[in-house]
Amino acid sequence: MNSSGRLIGVGVGPGDPGLLTVKAIRALNSADVVAHFAKAGNLSNARAIVEQYLRAELQELPLLYPITTEHATDDLAYRNAIQKFFDEAASDIATHLESGRTVAVLSEGDPLFFGSYMHLHIRLMKHYRTEVIPGVTGMSGCWSAAGLPLAQGDDVLTVLPATLKEDELIRRFRQNDASVVMKVGRHLAKVRRALHSTQRLAGAIYVERGTMDDQRLMPLIEKEDDAAPYFAIVLVPGRAWAA
Amino acid sequence: MNSSGRLIGVGVGPGDPGLLTVKAIRALNSADVVAHFAKAGNLSNARAIVEQYLRAELQELPLLYPITTEHATDDLAYRNAIQKFFDEAASDIATHLESGRTVAVLSEGDPLFFGSYMHLHIRLMKHYRTEVIPGVTGMSGCWSAAGLPLAQGDDVLTVLPATLKEDELIRRFRQNDASVVMKVGRHLAKVRRALHSTQRLAGAIYVERGTMDDQRLMPLIEKEDDAAPYFAIVLVPGRAWAA
Repeated sequence: MNSSGRLIGVGVGPGDPGLLTVKAIRALNSADVVAHFAKAGNLSNARAIVEQYLRAELQELPLLYPITTEHATDDLAYRNAIQKFFDEAASDIATHLESGRTVAVLSEGDPLFFGSYMHLHIRLMKHYRTEVIPGVTGMSGCWSAAGLPLAQGDDVLTVLPATLKEDELIRRFRQNDASVVMKVGRHLAKVRRALHSTQRLAGAIYVERGTMDDQRLMPLIEKEDDAAPYFAIVLVPGRAWAA
Repeated sequence: MNSSGRLIGVGVGPGDPGLLTVKAIRALNSADVVAHFAKAGNLSNARAIVEQYLRAELQELPLLYPITTEHATDDLAYRNAIQKFFDEAASDIATHLESGRTVAVLSEGDPLFFGSYMHLHIRLMKHYRTEVIPGVTGMSGCWSAAGLPLAQGDDVLTVLPATLKEDELIRRFRQNDASVVMKVGRHLAKVRRALHSTQRLAGAIYVERGTMDDQRLMPLIEKEDDAAPYFAIVLVPGRAWAA
């Protein structure tokens, strides 16, 4: 290990500040620097969740994504820009770690569950002390808000990014018990068609900003348009629980 | 709603008491009765996790599973005994709710993620006010302890009960990116064979009592025997992260 610096990936949960863990709050109290991801020009969602726990003297390190719209991940220019962004973010954090500071990186939900933190973790874990504080995932927040038992017993639960192609979504819905569709964003019409053609639409629940004050939650079948934010989730209960 | 009674499913996280949420602690402070599941003759794991947060004057309601060994879920006598147990547990809780009490039901991990709480929830939700406080899942605790990014980007993550038949496990491992195998218990030899025959064994991580003081965590390939407790988990990283 290069220094006494310490990197902590801090899961801040799905949105309700009450869903922070005791350990996450302790980490924020012990950190010298708090880093948070945001799109350029936007405030960090993760920072907003923990705002009441940030000490005034804490140093902040905003990490601003270079690209603000979604791109196909097979777009080489996009991939290169993202890799460069994570390289530079890791390098900025390493400067603090070399000075012996404790750097907490805020992660919405759980740090190692489809989050950006993991890209810093794999770049820094070989050289510095690291710790990951797990958090309540967005999907747990959503199914709890819905009061919806999603999977039980011998059910298989599959977490699918909405970016998958329609035929792949259909294949998965057909063979799955319960599914969670993440990162719905501009893919809602496709997700809806795939659920319809596999007879899974009736039980599906749409959740936007789950656990937050302005949460929207409804049966997908009652949602009249296909507009959805990036972090919206669709819950598809296992057959035992389906409508 | 029948009364002013209130049922709260409280996720207590994977084992480390520091992974309780602020909201879970508040619920324990406001509850009149705390119910917890355990096998007859055993102490409740969930109760042990929250012990430091239980007020002396709190009334406790232990819910003791009638059967202490695992059974095939297609065994009719077993299914009937379990249904009767949940019916009686819901009835015991309803008595408190009818008296206007707030009953918190402790759930290891997240209440609606493969937990026993959901069987009470579906029996009581139509008649009483209910709230579900999500918790950090056992799998999040395990991959955080391992520092293992399991899934990213367009990966599909599948959560499989180890009780599945070997050919079904093989089929799932073959087509999956990342997998979490839950409830490993006496099924470890089968899980190991299925991973081996799909060339996924090398990257797999075995975790027992994740986030607890006596946690055991190792590459599955280095585990020399096939003994495992019921709650042990095997993590199979997506191809991007595999060894």
